[in-house]
Formats: sequence, C-alpha cells, structure tokens
Amino acid sequence: MQTRWSERFAQRTRGMRSSAVRELLKLTEQPDVISFGGGLPAPEVFPLEKFRESAERVLKEEGQRALQYSTTEGYRPLREMVARHASRLGVEITADHVLLTSGSQQALDLIGKVFVNNGDHLLVERPTYLGALQAWRTYQAEYCCVSMDDEGMQTDDVEAQIRSGPKFIYALPNFQNPSGVTLSEARRHRLIEIADHYGVPILEDDPYGQLRYEGDHLPSLVLLDGQREKTDGAPYRGNVIYLSTFSKTLAPGIRLGWIIAPAAVIQKLVQAKQGADLHTSTFSQMVAYDVARGGFLDQHVRFIREVYRERRDAMLKALETHFPAGVTWTRPQGGLFLWVRFPDQLDAADVLKVAVEQKVAFVPGQPFFPDGTGHNTARLNFSYSAPETIDEGIRRLGAVLKSLVKGARVAVGARERAQTMSPG
Amino acid sequence: MQTRWSERFAQRTRGMRSSAVRELLKLTEQPDVISFGGGLPAPEVFPLEKFRESAERVLKEEGQRALQYSTTEGYRPLREMVARHASRLGVEITADHVLLTSGSQQALDLIGKVFVNNGDHLLVERPTYLGALQAWRTYQAEYCCVSMDDEGMQTDDVEAQIRSGPKFIYALPNFQNPSGVTLSEARRHRLIEIADHYGVPILEDDPYGQLRYEGDHLPSLVLLDGQREKTDGAPYRGNVIYLSTFSKTLAPGIRLGWIIAPAAVIQKLVQAKQGADLHTSTFSQMVAYDVARGGFLDQHVRFIREVYRERRDAMLKALETHFPAGVTWTRPQGGLFLWVRFPDQLDAADVLKVAVEQKVAFVPGQPFFPDGTGHNTARLNFSYSAPETIDEGIRRLGAVLKSLVKGARVAVGARERAQTMSPG
Repeated sequence: MQTRWSERFAQRTRGMRSSAVRELLKLTEQPDVISFGGGLPAPEVFPLEKFRESAERVLKEEGQRALQYSTTEGYRPLREMVARHASRLGVEITADHVLLTSGSQQALDLIGKVFVNNGDHLLVERPTYLGALQAWRTYQAEYCCVSMDDEGMQTDDVEAQIRSGPKFIYALPNFQNPSGVTLSEARRHRLIEIADHYGVPILEDDPYGQLRYEGDHLPSLVLLDGQREKTDGAPYRGNVIYLSTFSKTLAPGIRLGWIIAPAAVIQKLVQAKQGADLHTSTFSQMVAYDVARGGFLDQHVRFIREVYRERRDAMLKALETHFPAGVTWTRPQGGLFLWVRFPDQLDAADVLKVAVEQKVAFVPGQPFFPDGTGHNTARLNFSYSAPETIDEGIRRLGAVLKSLVKGARVAVGARERAQTMSPG
Repeated sequence: MQTRWSERFAQRTRGMRSSAVRELLKLTEQPDVISFGGGLPAPEVFPLEKFRESAERVLKEEGQRALQYSTTEGYRPLREMVARHASRLGVEITADHVLLTSGSQQALDLIGKVFVNNGDHLLVERPTYLGALQAWRTYQAEYCCVSMDDEGMQTDDVEAQIRSGPKFIYALPNFQNPSGVTLSEARRHRLIEIADHYGVPILEDDPYGQLRYEGDHLPSLVLLDGQREKTDGAPYRGNVIYLSTFSKTLAPGIRLGWIIAPAAVIQKLVQAKQGADLHTSTFSQMVAYDVARGGFLDQHVRFIREVYRERRDAMLKALETHFPAGVTWTRPQGGLFLWVRFPDQLDAADVLKVAVEQKVAFVPGQPFFPDGTGHNTARLNFSYSAPETIDEGIRRLGAVLKSLVKGARVAVGARERAQTMSPG
C-alpha cells in the first residue's frame, strides 16, 4: 500500500484557488509586455545606495546580532520608530502596541489565524484586496460585500449588512487596492459610529497612506476611534487594528510590515507569529531601521510622491487621449492603482487575452469581487512604468478596446462621468 | 456599545499557550546567566565577512531585483542549489520539488495549513520539537506519542499506534531536538516499511543532519523511501516530505529554510505560502545564495562541526565531572542538544528556579512531551557557549542538583548507564 501526500490535503485546501495575483504576476515577466498588472513599486526609486551603506554598517557594527535569532515582536528600535510615527499622526501608542510582520500579507494571515473561525462572516468592500480574501479563505471565512462609490465604502450599506454579525469590518480607506478610491472624511466618522453602535471592530489596512499626490491627508480610522471617547484614560481605545508596511515606501523585497493593536491583541498575534515563522528576518529589520532613521524615510517618501504623481498624471492623460468613449475610470489621489470599467458587454478576461497579444497587460477586476461580479472591470498600476511607457501601453490598450467596442455608442458626457464613477 | 478585539479571538486561539520556548529564550537575555536554554547557534561562527561581501555584491550588481517582490517559490538559483545538494545525497529531485520558506518554522506552519484538519491525529516522537507541536495546535491537531530509546523512535510502538489513523508521522531522525538521539539505520528501514504498509506518509525534519561530529552519515528517510521501489520511473516517490534550513549552517537571523516534496504538494504549499507572506525576503535569499555558492557552505559546515564537536565534548566531560549520581544524559553524535534526566523526585521546573538564582539556565523537558509527562527531564544546548563557559555552567548546575538530590543514593553503575539512557 502506498499513500501519497497529495491524497491527504486538508479539507480547507481543497478549495484553495490557484492564485490569481500570482498567475498574473507571471505576465509581467515577458520583457516586451508593458504591464499594468502587478502592484510593483518602481525599482528605480529604491534607495540602493542607502541600503548598501546600512547593510555594511549593520554587518560591521552589529553583525552577530543581525544574523542571530531575535524576538518574535520584532527589533525594538524599529517598533519604537513605528510608534513614534503613529504618535506624530495623533495615535498615542508605544512599542508595546506594535508587532513587526513579514510583510503586510503576514499581518493579514495572523489576523485570520487569531480571529477567524470556520464560517465567520467578514464585512469587506466590493471590490477589495485580493490577498486578504485569499488569506482568510484559508480560515474558511465568508464574505459580506459593501458597495462602494467615489467616496469609498457606502456606510448606509455597512449598516444594512452589519446585522449579519460580521467578526470584523475590513477597510482600506486610502487609495484602495484595487479601486484607487479614498473613503471621505464624513464616511470615516460614520463608519466609526456604526462599528461602535453594533460592537463590530474594524481592521484598517493602510499600505499607501503616505503616498498622497493631491488633497489633504485624512485622519485614519484608528485615530478617529481613539478620539471618539476617552472614558478610562487609556491611550488606545482599541476598536480598530491598523496595518501598514515598508513595501511601498522603502522596498517590498525585504518583507516588512506592521500591526498596531491593543496590547492584549498584540500578545495573541505574537503567539500566532511564533508558530508561523518565529520572527521576521533580524537582518532585514536592522537594515530597514538603519535606512529609515534620521529622517531619511520622510525625505524618501517625498521623492517617491513626486515620481508617482507624475506617473499617475501620465496615465490619466493617456486614458483621456487613447481610451474610447464608454470606458470609465477612477481618479485616485494617491497610491498605485486606478480602476477601469469597460462597457458591460466586454469581459475583462477576454480583453486581457487580446491585450497580451498586443503586448500590454493589466489585472481583470473580477477576482477582487468576493461575490463574483465585476466581469467588466480592471485594475491598472501606474507606479511601475515610466511616463512614456505608460503612454505607449495605454495607447496599445486603447486600440484593443476600440477594436472590441466597435459597436459601442459614444455616450454624451462619458468623459465627465469618468471623473466620478463608482468602482463597484 | 463597544466591543474590543480581545473579545473576538477565534475558537482555536483560546487554547493558544503562552509560548514556552519564547518565555525561556528571555532567560538567555540576562548577561550574567549562563544559558543552555536556547537553540542558538554560536554567533562567533557566523561568516560575517562573507555576508558583508555578498550583501555588497548583491546590492551593487542586482540591487533592484533584491529589493523587489519576487516569486513565492523562492529565488531559483537557491532552489537549484538545494536540489543539487539533495541529489548529491542520492535524492533525485529538481528545483520544482523545492519551496524556500521563511525559516523551517514556516515550513511546519504551511504543512499544518495544507494537511491538518481539526482533530487530525499526528504520530510524533515523545519528546519532540516544541515548535512543531505549537504550529499544529493552531490547526487543532491531536498527538499520538511514540516512545523513544537510544536508537530513536521505537518502531514497534509506531506499529502499535498507527492504527489510530494518523495524518502523518513526524520524525526528526538526526540528533533530535530535544533529545539529541539519532534514529538507527535498521529502524529507518523499518519505519519506511511500516509507513508504506499502512499508507501513512512521513514528515522528515532534518535541521541538523549536516552537523555530525562522529560516526557515519545515515541515509535520510526521503532517500530510503525513494530507493524502496521505482515502479513508475518517477524520480521522487513521494511518501516522505523533507524539511531543512540554513539556520544552523549559515545563520538563523536571515530566516531561510526549505521543503522538498512531490511537485503537486509543492504547488499546494506555494498557494498556502502566498497567503501567508507572499514570499520570503528576496534580499535574504539572494545574499544567502551568494554566501553559500562556490563550495563555501560545505567548507563552512566543516568549520562549524569542529567548533561544535569541541563544545559537545566539553559538555560531556563537564557532566561527568560535576553532575551527581542518579542523573543521566544522552551522548549525541551531532546537533545542538543533549538530554538530561533528573531523579524522579525532582521536577525540572523547580530545578530551573534554583538554577536561575545560581545564574545558569536550561529548558525543562515537559513542554516537549505532548502527553504532559517528562517532568524530570531537561534539554541542554551545547552550541552557544564557549567550552570554558560550558564547564562553569555545568559546574553551577551540578551544585544545584547536588543540593537538591541530597537524599539520593549513589547507584552503582549510574555513570555507565548515562551513556545509553533513553530520552523518553
């Protein structure tokens, strides 16, 4: 008798999908394809020289420490830096409220491990971040979808759906992945109110918050929650867990993110992380700290904003120039992505097939919809390619769309509507 | 109404234990305590200069790649290196059978995620690696314990217990953590036979296989399994999944391990890993590859063996000199640990309390026993401290034990039995 491992997969993995993100990233690997598919930062903005200096210094001055096992919570000076940065934005926390993770993806996985039981409902935006859906499907989460418009998650719909008893609300308030939409300040207040009223906590995922190219910074949910009432003098009220990452500001290849949460929650997450990978690379943490400290990170973020603002503008201009009437898109104030809606009769997967023949790629929107809708939507990344490449890629994609929507009527005012469309 | 996150922990985390390993690692942080508690490699053997050169070269020549997102499977040249190394030992595989993980701990977590359903039985050695027990408790595994003696896992007991229908057998054949015991060659053959007969796969965890200080290298289970029959010409028979790590040969702080498994299993593990952390640090992988390549790793392992052999010998000699009669211990042929049994009337946790006052620490053995036995056992690490520190630490611990076993009779021949005791 011989049994193979592949006959023994756990129940929960039987439905594990071959990852859409991963398969799509492969499209970016052909060198002659212009890809708007990945969520990649521009490698030419990576502070290589700074990383070289820091790796050298860390290995020279603290090499034995950098290569040894370290604590699960993470490198203390880096946790303190994260806490100082949050405090600067008004969120009064200490290093004890910070857990460093192996990228923000691990934060999502640990949240699933600690909070999600089989069949738990989670309230998510529609569309929402694919990597979160994937992480929590492993823990057999079920999703309730909240509609979005150009002010983000529709809070009326949150109230309508919250009676299903979700374990938590998952929100990406700034320049959402995939839609690029930002939750308005009024809705932020309303969301906090509703969550409080119904006793449902919020998970705030904010990888792009610092990458704003226009308009004013809006207060984060964790800050608004903390300000709402301070009856017990506690510095951190604790109905919001906040996630962020160094992937978009320093570099994604070092896999470094963080969770801000009440200390009791951090303790549980630390236990889960210990079983998951003991700790995040000591070397990566110490190098990242050395790169970021002394004001370099702030200065570098200002530089990245300039580069990405130009690219966003290049894409918006190219869309105006090359896309046919009947196609609409969002106009993000920051982040890495914008969101396109093709005419109803087009399926984005079909568009992608033709597009790849024409050497341009994007991500079809459907996998970002837990309810399987969104067949005619697409996510475009504008951070990775140079402005002239963006123009050429959008020109190619525009030509593909024109050939596919031949029959589509040129609706009066389509261009105007493009500025205020809803992502959902 | 206000709900806090801490009221919403998932069912599975309610029983999550505050980690024994983690709490114990904290004991090593007091500078005046001689700790045999951690599983730490000696930092003075880390190839710092080599890491400096490699970090410099990687950032200079391929910096943009090293700091960017990369594939979930891992950096291909490193996967190929792992495959070549396995093939050199007779296991015929390619890079497609290799998944790089964020340390071996992540490998254990991913195995749990992909294979362990609530209530699944797993057949484990008694004692066994605490980090594995912890990783799989998250997935609500239950443990069946196989007794050990000085030839390792007792295969008769495997056969007696296998009828409970375990999902897999978890084995650490070389210089087991915690016991230091090695599975004999005859038992390796027998284990493969039994596993095949009952159709139960084996998970072989081999972090220390290369760190042998005396005796001949024994064939790994994955090799024996592959040799048993080759009816279909497949290069990899697939009833054994094999895990190992760079933590004990290069450095643990970079968090880099690997899984060798049939390609279909690797695909599932890749999906699980994508949800867990997208991929392991690109930078760590590229630097580790650059450090290891060109024969450096083999050469470095020979150096580590010399250092650790001397430390093992120093500990064995110190135990002979300083420990009272009635205390027995194993004599490992490799690895990082040996295993001590105190007289029955002593509880290792009580011994530890007194020991810490005397500025010496170790790990009580009980947490390594899933069935809660082993109250009078302890794990001693001999890799971390220099020989003279080992002698002083064992002297202190010996004095503590002498004071505690005052009443114990000096059994004739206790010293002889110390050489062949069973760890269980």
